[in-house]
Amino acid sequence: MTEVAAPRYPVTSRNRLKRRHDRGHYDHASVHAILDSGILCHVAYVIDGQPYATPTLYWREGTRLYWHGSSASRMLRLHQGGVPVCLTMAHLDGLVMARTGFNHSANYRSVMCFGQAHLIESDEKVSALHAMIERFYPGRDAGLRPFSALDIKATKVIGMEIEEASAKIRAAGNLDEPEDMDNPSWAGVIPVATVIGAAQPCPNNPLHPIFEGLERYVEGAHLDEVLAAVAPR
Amino acid sequence: MTEVAAPRYPVTSRNRLKRRHDRGHYDHASVHAILDSGILCHVAYVIDGQPYATPTLYWREGTRLYWHGSSASRMLRLHQGGVPVCLTMAHLDGLVMARTGFNHSANYRSVMCFGQAHLIESDEKVSALHAMIERFYPGRDAGLRPFSALDIKATKVIGMEIEEASAKIRAAGNLDEPEDMDNPSWAGVIPVATVIGAAQPCPNNPLHPIFEGLERYVEGAHLDEVLAAVAPR
Repeated sequence: MTEVAAPRYPVTSRNRLKRRHDRGHYDHASVHAILDSGILCHVAYVIDGQPYATPTLYWREGTRLYWHGSSASRMLRLHQGGVPVCLTMAHLDGLVMARTGFNHSANYRSVMCFGQAHLIESDEKVSALHAMIERFYPGRDAGLRPFSALDIKATKVIGMEIEEASAKIRAAGNLDEPEDMDNPSWAGVIPVATVIGAAQPCPNNPLHPIFEGLERYVEGAHLDEVLAAVAPR
Repeated sequence: MTEVAAPRYPVTSRNRLKRRHDRGHYDHASVHAILDSGILCHVAYVIDGQPYATPTLYWREGTRLYWHGSSASRMLRLHQGGVPVCLTMAHLDGLVMARTGFNHSANYRSVMCFGQAHLIESDEKVSALHAMIERFYPGRDAGLRPFSALDIKATKVIGMEIEEASAKIRAAGNLDEPEDMDNPSWAGVIPVATVIGAAQPCPNNPLHPIFEGLERYVEGAHLDEVLAAVAPR
């Protein structure tokens, strides 16, 4: 049997973890799994030397990322060749309580992706907008009133090929020094998760309590698990 | 009676909302309320023209923000005068389902803060580390094993005065066009919240099920509400 190496993003000074190398992952599977469990990211970009971090909705197709237009679109019109961005997504999974302030920590799963952002236009933009709805709500797009030319004009879509990426994960209990174990403070993990609440229907809904394409978005479900489950394979 | 204007961050081209002015707020109370309901932010900074968005824990004292050391600390050593950063915090509050793809949206509360980041050192650093524990877990710091010189050396704290900030809030139902109301797709809001789970105690805990300084961090509580409730006045 020949072993085939798992696909992996290149590691350079830009994406190599500077601290806690034990928490880092660069393979596609680890990076994509975290990306596919999220919907809200932060995109960092620079205008005239000033950095911005803009929260926005994003989605992945293969090794490409797409997101909704932001202030960066002003800049993108001037740089047809693309502009450098860093797209970061982070889940907070727990608060870690230790017997020293220093050993307090957090459990998390995060990804940083680097690439050149481009404005997506014409047919590719229309496809991307349909793909966005289908990515989060499979089967839903076909039943909606179709996009109008005005809708499409009023929306900005930005995309980038992931050039480099890193995933960083902490998923562990409190790590206290043996000599601190006698301290009587409570130690352990307080888990947190983003959880779906009871749906709030529009008063104009017709009577269809099971809403097509949204079957998994039920009260009590964890959003990261739903997003991962509905992500295209 | 003299009316006193509520304190407000200055509005410049850096923090003025480029779109959806109706969702923007610049007063201290609105900005601080959102900041005080969060624990994980994204800090954007630039190294050699490359933007980075690093997720990290942060806290506020008045109009100052502090956060845990990140890769930016490399850069800060070289720029004693401070470096420009943008610290952003965003809560996702709901997925908004409409009858067109275009009118799909999200409910959220976000804040972008701009300023010059500095490394915090010596006595100010020690105070900041104690303040961080107390900010999130009131009363807890006094019972912990005190910080050692090594702990303090191994931690980086970064701070900045907020020069400009903006808050942006969407908290509404689906906004469909009247002519789309006949479309039979389910419309409304699927709320999401970051919720605390059942505490996972360290096996070495003594028997104190009610853990001092963590009383509010109970299963089912919403993390943003707990963080706001324990924030120093």
